Amino acid sequence: MPQPLRLDPDRFFPIDPRARGVARDLFAGVERKPILSPHGHTDPAWFATDTPFLDAPSLLVQPDHYLLRMLYSQGVVLEALGIAPLDGGDFERDPRAIWRTFAAHYPLFRGTPSRAWLDHVFSAVFDLDVRLSAETADHYFDTIGARLAEPSFRPRALYDRFNIEVLATTDRALDTLEHHTALRASGWPGRVIPTFRPDDVTDPDREDFVSNLERLGVLTGEDVGSFAGYLRALAARRASFRALGASATDHGPPSAMTADLAPAAAADLYARVRRGGATAEDAGLFRAQMLTEMARMSAEDGMVMQIHPGSWRNHNPALFARFGRDKGADIPRPTTYVDALKPLLDRFGEAKGLTVIVFTLDDTAYARELAPLAGHYPALRLGPAWWFHDAPEGMMRFRRATTETAGFYNTVGFNDDTRAFFSIPARHDMARRVDCAYLAELVATGRLDEDEAHTVAGELAYDLPKAAYRL
Amino acid sequence: MPQPLRLDPDRFFPIDPRARGVARDLFAGVERKPILSPHGHTDPAWFATDTPFLDAPSLLVQPDHYLLRMLYSQGVVLEALGIAPLDGGDFERDPRAIWRTFAAHYPLFRGTPSRAWLDHVFSAVFDLDVRLSAETADHYFDTIGARLAEPSFRPRALYDRFNIEVLATTDRALDTLEHHTALRASGWPGRVIPTFRPDDVTDPDREDFVSNLERLGVLTGEDVGSFAGYLRALAARRASFRALGASATDHGPPSAMTADLAPAAAADLYARVRRGGATAEDAGLFRAQMLTEMARMSAEDGMVMQIHPGSWRNHNPALFARFGRDKGADIPRPTTYVDALKPLLDRFGEAKGLTVIVFTLDDTAYARELAPLAGHYPALRLGPAWWFHDAPEGMMRFRRATTETAGFYNTVGFNDDTRAFFSIPARHDMARRVDCAYLAELVATGRLDEDEAHTVAGELAYDLPKAAYRL
Amino acid sequence: MPQPLRLDPDRFFPIDPRARGVARDLFAGVERKPILSPHGHTDPAWFATDTPFLDAPSLLVQPDHYLLRMLYSQGVVLEALGIAPLDGGDFERDPRAIWRTFAAHYPLFRGTPSRAWLDHVFSAVFDLDVRLSAETADHYFDTIGARLAEPSFRPRALYDRFNIEVLATTDRALDTLEHHTALRASGWPGRVIPTFRPDDVTDPDREDFVSNLERLGVLTGEDVGSFAGYLRALAARRASFRALGASATDHGPPSAMTADLAPAAAADLYARVRRGGATAEDAGLFRAQMLTEMARMSAEDGMVMQIHPGSWRNHNPALFARFGRDKGADIPRPTTYVDALKPLLDRFGEAKGLTVIVFTLDDTAYARELAPLAGHYPALRLGPAWWFHDAPEGMMRFRRATTETAGFYNTVGFNDDTRAFFSIPARHDMARRVDCAYLAELVATGRLDEDEAHTVAGELAYDLPKAAYRL
Repeated sequence: MPQPLRLDPDRFFPIDPRARGVARDLFAGVERKPILSPHGHTDPAWFATDTPFLDAPSLLVQPDHYLLRMLYSQGVVLEALGIAPLDGGDFERDPRAIWRTFAAHYPLFRGTPSRAWLDHVFSAVFDLDVRLSAETADHYFDTIGARLAEPSFRPRALYDRFNIEVLATTDRALDTLEHHTALRASGWPGRVIPTFRPDDVTDPDREDFVSNLERLGVLTGEDVGSFAGYLRALAARRASFRALGASATDHGPPSAMTADLAPAAAADLYARVRRGGATAEDAGLFRAQMLTEMARMSAEDGMVMQIHPGSWRNHNPALFARFGRDKGADIPRPTTYVDALKPLLDRFGEAKGLTVIVFTLDDTAYARELAPLAGHYPALRLGPAWWFHDAPEGMMRFRRATTETAGFYNTVGFNDDTRAFFSIPARHDMARRVDCAYLAELVATGRLDEDEAHTVAGELAYDLPKAAYRL
Repeated sequence: MPQPLRLDPDRFFPIDPRARGVARDLFAGVERKPILSPHGHTDPAWFATDTPFLDAPSLLVQPDHYLLRMLYSQGVVLEALGIAPLDGGDFERDPRAIWRTFAAHYPLFRGTPSRAWLDHVFSAVFDLDVRLSAETADHYFDTIGARLAEPSFRPRALYDRFNIEVLATTDRALDTLEHHTALRASGWPGRVIPTFRPDDVTDPDREDFVSNLERLGVLTGEDVGSFAGYLRALAARRASFRALGASATDHGPPSAMTADLAPAAAADLYARVRRGGATAEDAGLFRAQMLTEMARMSAEDGMVMQIHPGSWRNHNPALFARFGRDKGADIPRPTTYVDALKPLLDRFGEAKGLTVIVFTLDDTAYARELAPLAGHYPALRLGPAWWFHDAPEGMMRFRRATTETAGFYNTVGFNDDTRAFFSIPARHDMARRVDCAYLAELVATGRLDEDEAHTVAGELAYDLPKAAYRL
Repeated sequence: MPQPLRLDPDRFFPIDPRARGVARDLFAGVERKPILSPHGHTDPAWFATDTPFLDAPSLLVQPDHYLLRMLYSQGVVLEALGIAPLDGGDFERDPRAIWRTFAAHYPLFRGTPSRAWLDHVFSAVFDLDVRLSAETADHYFDTIGARLAEPSFRPRALYDRFNIEVLATTDRALDTLEHHTALRASGWPGRVIPTFRPDDVTDPDREDFVSNLERLGVLTGEDVGSFAGYLRALAARRASFRALGASATDHGPPSAMTADLAPAAAADLYARVRRGGATAEDAGLFRAQMLTEMARMSAEDGMVMQIHPGSWRNHNPALFARFGRDKGADIPRPTTYVDALKPLLDRFGEAKGLTVIVFTLDDTAYARELAPLAGHYPALRLGPAWWFHDAPEGMMRFRRATTETAGFYNTVGFNDDTRAFFSIPARHDMARRVDCAYLAELVATGRLDEDEAHTVAGELAYDLPKAAYRL
């Protein structure tokens, strides 16, 4: 007998009836607010071409590194999930078989946000009313497949149905942005905008760094043989992104280290790393220097700067060799900010019009470093609970650790940070509910008046991201 | 329409009605206990001269770095708050204008302890019954100003009204303690005592270190040309403080590092740093050595030793250049204790009669290092949640992280640590409520019997600080 | 008047009535499940000889370093608790006097797990119904003494009464396992099995390391003059342990550092440390290399590998000199895993059939490093909250910090990790209750369906440890 699938209307709210009642009231005021998604990884081609999605596994399983990592941790090889090995080895090609494998392992996700998001998608988007399991796998596969063939399940229709107001993608500096260009030209009123993520041309540790610099020169017509030319080329790319609606940049270095070298030293460093084969020290210093350069450009061109530090990318070399990037083997490391950000803040901590949004995977930094920093420096804001922390406990830890020191107004609302387009409403729903739960606790313990909680709930859901990301 | 201002009589208590009931009962037993304030930053001149306080901004805004930092983080320049730039530049001098600026930004403090303390002061001390806002700013300014002119709002009257039993100030080694001397001579029965804080003569990184040593020699008649003379001078200052009632010392190094050098090496080190221009390594080692020397003196003279490590002072150089110290730009850093305190503990961890109270701004150390250390070494006690952690969430984290390992009796009650005299009752009220909330949770989950919870509540509020600080 | 002693039937459950009801239901389903104790420190001689326990202090106080450390921290010298100084100095020999000292200090343990475990033992095992205090000390001493003389309080009878299915001891590599051999030969159906803990022959910092290597050679007949012979000797010891039922190994290095040296470099390193007087660097590298060697052997022989890193053993040199090891002076240090485990994981992270269970005393690593690692690597599992974290708050932090990223199935149930045999039921009772409390919270907040919570509760209490430890 399949079990029913039912979303608890009070999910993520406080358990106590009185606090739950307050949370319900707060949530009622924000549930239907438009979605601002200022940081994410959806594919602009979906909206440019508006072609239907294919099937359940390629839509819901294969692009989701949260799912891949958990399944892999419990012995499910990625080949069985339809991930093609780079060496051309065999892998499962039958979508139904892949889906059955996933469904049979669905209990692994008990207690995880993946489970909550997926159940939300299944219930609210696909109207499924039984729980996913080995037994119901085919029913799911067929139902989802049928729905995806309907016009109302095409990307643009869903964008409207999901009540999205702005959706930012993340794009490499070398991206030529054809799909964004096509979107702007198409007359479709949806607002899908790019984000400038230049790690491909600022991280000397990337294997393609040297050739990327070449392409950057070609793309912009600048002479990247000199540091000055390289910086001009970056400024040109930023301008191209802005012309297509971009309001933000994004940076994903392994640490938050910044530097503020004298111009000649910076130029020398660039000359060294441009040759390829940079030492670890030079590579790190160059990334550090480039964060400060990017802050300078942001202070000039008004693009909001996001820093997402602290992930050890591709920690598992065997998996990386077999399948490449983004298969769930990125692992956080201890990350400090007070020393690391100082060179940047010494230069630009008070810069008029600059906003630097800092994220962390090391949530011990929230109470100790990030809330005190963001509660002091005018240019600094705290990004929301990120990645592994983007779930009820992690989000609640974020608020508990930061509010007493940084308040609400040095935070910037929610990022869904996802390529799982269908889960965007689920993620914003969860974030809004958790924020309302936190606010309800404050109200129920006499730490915030209820009228103010309503105001703050609306600001967290809509006004703060709109203002912080200049949307 | 102004909103009402009303303190929730159950603020900071558990939400669940049964646990809340227990908390209420516990709090009723400690609410009226006298206030012991063994660590703080009020000005002894207030009590020595008993002159009236001036106006709302100079009393409540300008001395409070919590407020300055939050306002600055949101773009309010300190000049607008009446803070005078060191270069003689312009700043707002109209108290009413300053207060209006503050009032207009009051929503920034939603969810912060500053808001809770201020609302308590407004309601319980000034009998205000509407919420502070742009709209009510003048009403506040006038009401507070009128009250401050009344005799019952003078420092000594408030000391009595606040039910303070002991109030410790914090005083530099070079402080000549005139106000404390005058107080002792005045016959006023209030107990306002100094605390010996020798960072001015133990930290070679201070710009005035060398001249401070000179003054130390002059003040004590000791020859500070030798390490032995320097130590005798410090012992003499400690004795002078004790003669005026001091029971404790306080130390605020950037890290908790201690050292235990051989006498000749320590003397050599002193000779080097005394010349000025100490290397970073020498400066750090000297601070480390001096913590151990201070522990030795405490074991001899019975003064309780407090260590407050881990703050990066004046992190924002532009702000420091413009306004000097204590304007909200001190930021915590990762701080470790197990290695750092070992030299001191190897010497004095079992010393009879020694009490070293350790604080942290890195609250990850509570469960990992500080509770295990304090739960073992007889000389060590845990100071309460400090600075950025001195708020309901931070205090609750402190108890949750330390009690299971160190129990209650290796902690020392509450420190208000404030120069905001009017907020002292608010801060003790919050601390007592949060402790009662924690104890009520233990009772409601079968972890502590209710009769014991009553005992512990009283000990946390009164007996433990009295014993730990030898008051 | 003595206070009553009464175990709250709802202890450790959520306070809210609805969530509490769910927790009660969940706990009813697991309360009577047999106890699997796959990691602990009981003495196999108890079960081999089945001789009666002696008296309350030697059974309950003297072997319990949690109690010794707390009492010592509050000025009770260990001599007063009957601990013999190594120098032959005087100490209390009267058990009743020792017990009275302990009883008089029982309030120190308010809010600690020691208190909860002891009250459980007093009430559930000894049927005591008044609280321990100075006043009731003699009543306790006499009651416990009388009971211990009864046949039903002998080790084997209690093993049955406690409903233990498997009980693993921890044994040094050089242990000749006579008691385990006798147990296997005795025909007694209880399953008491050894665990292979080779720190005595893998840690060059031990004072007896060189002589231990000699004994290892003698014991196995292998030539430990070469690294190859040393490894063969270790493999032989593992086989001997397996023959007596061992399913796991255990390793307690000061850090989690692993290494994967080339064979010649490893052999050279062995040659250096075998001579004694290893440098700190060599000693650390050798421990690191040996973790990887042990993982290799585990991948071959199927023994589950446990790593318990991060304790600074014998931090208090005065106490160590006076009384030796395990007197409560082991203190946790910051411990990182992402870099430290990489060499081992690069080699064996995907190894078929390998299970490495990692523990931590630095619980900041759970959300940041350990849950992401265990939620990815097939060979890795997370051990439960350990040592100072083995209590309601610590256990709850563990679940809150790990479930959203690693789920439940990368965890392995509970370890009691104790030599306090009488407290084993109390510890499993607490762990099961806390897990049910956590699951009930998930149910009450719509994060887990109730039928699934029942399944998971049973798995955490029984199935996961059974599978992970291959029992």
